[in-house]
Amino acid sequence: MAVCELISVGTEILLGDILNTDAQYLSIELAKLGISVIHQSTVGDNRERLLAQLDEAAKRSDIIILSGGLGPTPDDLTKEVCCEFFGKEMFLHEPTVEKIKKYFSSKGMKMAQNNLKQAMLPKDCVIFPNDNGTAPGMAIEKDDVHILVLPGPPRELKPMFQNCAVPYLMRFSDRIIVSHNIRTFGIGESSMAEKVNDMFDAHNPTVAPYAKDGEALLRVTAMAKTKEDAEKLCEPVIKEIKKRLDGYVYGVDYNCIEEAVIEMLKEHHLKVATAESCTGGLIAKRITDVPGASEVFECGIVSYANEIKHKVLGVSNDDLYKYGAVSEPVAKQMAQGALRVSGADIAVSVTGIAGPDSDSTNKPVGLIYIGLADKENVWVREIRTSRKDRSYNRYVSASNALNMIRLYIDNKL
Amino acid sequence: MAVCELISVGTEILLGDILNTDAQYLSIELAKLGISVIHQSTVGDNRERLLAQLDEAAKRSDIIILSGGLGPTPDDLTKEVCCEFFGKEMFLHEPTVEKIKKYFSSKGMKMAQNNLKQAMLPKDCVIFPNDNGTAPGMAIEKDDVHILVLPGPPRELKPMFQNCAVPYLMRFSDRIIVSHNIRTFGIGESSMAEKVNDMFDAHNPTVAPYAKDGEALLRVTAMAKTKEDAEKLCEPVIKEIKKRLDGYVYGVDYNCIEEAVIEMLKEHHLKVATAESCTGGLIAKRITDVPGASEVFECGIVSYANEIKHKVLGVSNDDLYKYGAVSEPVAKQMAQGALRVSGADIAVSVTGIAGPDSDSTNKPVGLIYIGLADKENVWVREIRTSRKDRSYNRYVSASNALNMIRLYIDNKL
Repeated sequence: MAVCELISVGTEILLGDILNTDAQYLSIELAKLGISVIHQSTVGDNRERLLAQLDEAAKRSDIIILSGGLGPTPDDLTKEVCCEFFGKEMFLHEPTVEKIKKYFSSKGMKMAQNNLKQAMLPKDCVIFPNDNGTAPGMAIEKDDVHILVLPGPPRELKPMFQNCAVPYLMRFSDRIIVSHNIRTFGIGESSMAEKVNDMFDAHNPTVAPYAKDGEALLRVTAMAKTKEDAEKLCEPVIKEIKKRLDGYVYGVDYNCIEEAVIEMLKEHHLKVATAESCTGGLIAKRITDVPGASEVFECGIVSYANEIKHKVLGVSNDDLYKYGAVSEPVAKQMAQGALRVSGADIAVSVTGIAGPDSDSTNKPVGLIYIGLADKENVWVREIRTSRKDRSYNRYVSASNALNMIRLYIDNKL
Repeated sequence: MAVCELISVGTEILLGDILNTDAQYLSIELAKLGISVIHQSTVGDNRERLLAQLDEAAKRSDIIILSGGLGPTPDDLTKEVCCEFFGKEMFLHEPTVEKIKKYFSSKGMKMAQNNLKQAMLPKDCVIFPNDNGTAPGMAIEKDDVHILVLPGPPRELKPMFQNCAVPYLMRFSDRIIVSHNIRTFGIGESSMAEKVNDMFDAHNPTVAPYAKDGEALLRVTAMAKTKEDAEKLCEPVIKEIKKRLDGYVYGVDYNCIEEAVIEMLKEHHLKVATAESCTGGLIAKRITDVPGASEVFECGIVSYANEIKHKVLGVSNDDLYKYGAVSEPVAKQMAQGALRVSGADIAVSVTGIAGPDSDSTNKPVGLIYIGLADKENVWVREIRTSRKDRSYNRYVSASNALNMIRLYIDNKL
């Protein structure tokens, strides 16, 4: 299996001015090709350091993909250093000069002289034309080591990778890697791991646990000659995991629980409404992040103040006074109120103390009540995150509200 | 000047499952300490590769900061490999065991046996307690090379870096770097750059332009022996920039426009309500992201469906039919409706086509109407992002609604 590593070039990354999203993008795309990325590194616009990194990389990798440092300014030296490393001469590539001139004239600008630098290319390289900028990319080879050079800006790198690098890399892609993420809710990473501990030693498919945004997930990854074979390897493992984690698994290969919940709502032709206090619109926001949410979501009420809980949702003032806004009765009445106002089939509500500070009642930060009402019943769940982290508490509250919809549809409330 | 490098450990990063934001965060914070980051790398959960990377790093850097691989599962081996590299033994640190048990019991959970692994610490290390998770961090030293080990999850890494790593690293910090971000809204990066072009050549402080989430900002960075001296260097430059960008600058060192807007609302004792269609709760969510928002925000309506626009906000059915939901009259009536329902001083509304697809009227994706109503008047602005990117369109719509509040308070509508 071909082994690849990524070198990002740019002092702006080392200064933290830029978040290195190219590395993530390339890693995902290379995995799809069955090319394994063993190393990522970032070096500044510095000849010695880049030479040293190339030297390291060439010892352990078949493919080295560099991004960044193809600009017109003197500090852009990726291409030059790669040629120095491979002992390749450069020449002025006239077609590229023309392309750059066209690029500028199409924007009603004249090409600056220093852009000519970008048309200097190594002898016998494979040229990757740039349709979204002035710097072409390229592939150069020596002693079975392949160096691919791509521009840094994502909107130039991504299309060039797909249109030029992928075809070039196909020769290395003898196997296909297939991955599936089994998403769970309501179980911690360690407890989940304990239930499937024995499966972590397997090699093909591999099973690896991850924790993300208060959720735990298992990634099943198989490698085979064909996608079909890889899928066949995954199937029984996924089946077994689902059995062991029954009740926690909300789906496979969803990006987030809202995607799963919206699909369930569509299947059951149910519309949901929201009544939010501490989450302040986050549940509605997450539902409407998903294209096509309008099929299942029509109305959300953010009742941040008690007065609105009463006026708009009809929560009893006595109960607000007696139990406080963060209480089971209020969560119930918020859900029932949202159901009434919206005419939806079900409604979820959240009232809690997101923090950083508690409210006048001094209830603990992280105490959250989640309600769900349908036309007959209403359910409430209490959660204690025991964290002071406002955004975490808000996010986890919203996730639990979404999960409550899932449990309702599965008749598990 | 101390030289530092970062090693991120995690196969999930090499697979592209996770975007490596830790590296950016650490680079920014280290720069503030005057510690220069010369190299960033990512290796998988792999003993040999991590040992090799540590060996490389120890040759060129005084400080090596590792993040990730401190979890309870068998594939987490960062700590173990660092100890192997430095020839340090590990021991079970009872106080940490207790801390982990407490952490779980506070969540009403039992500690899993494999969490004990996280309480194994190298002899004579400096322990970095973890207040947001179970894995403590640590610093170990040998032959003037300092290895700092931090947990991977940003919400654990960031506070641990600030509370433990920064004090530990102060010994290497011989000067202070002070940065201020001048945030603007409503002006593009290049137009902004043109107005301050001449300032980009300055060295101390430096002035650099950035574009982020549809906003342009200028970062002023000064370096000096003391914070006071650095601040003195920034002052006049910031003053000049504010003068040149008058009307666009919404503040200095805010993280986002909602922070600035909420402060303005507080100062003027104004309460705002929201009526959202395409943003689906995002404006309310962004307002309530800010602690203390309850002082200025009480009520938000997500009227995703026309029926709700009519029923809850009182938008005329005729106008909905005649002009469509994405129209100036509907934006106006949504804002007025939210004002009525909420009893707030002002209300903002958004109705638009976020995409990826248009609605039945075939209006262009990215067409957005933003309304603002007070008790006397109502204003509407039309925006055309000419982008198909749903999340971008939603985010920029919300930002423009927030900016409209700012313009209202500044009497610039």
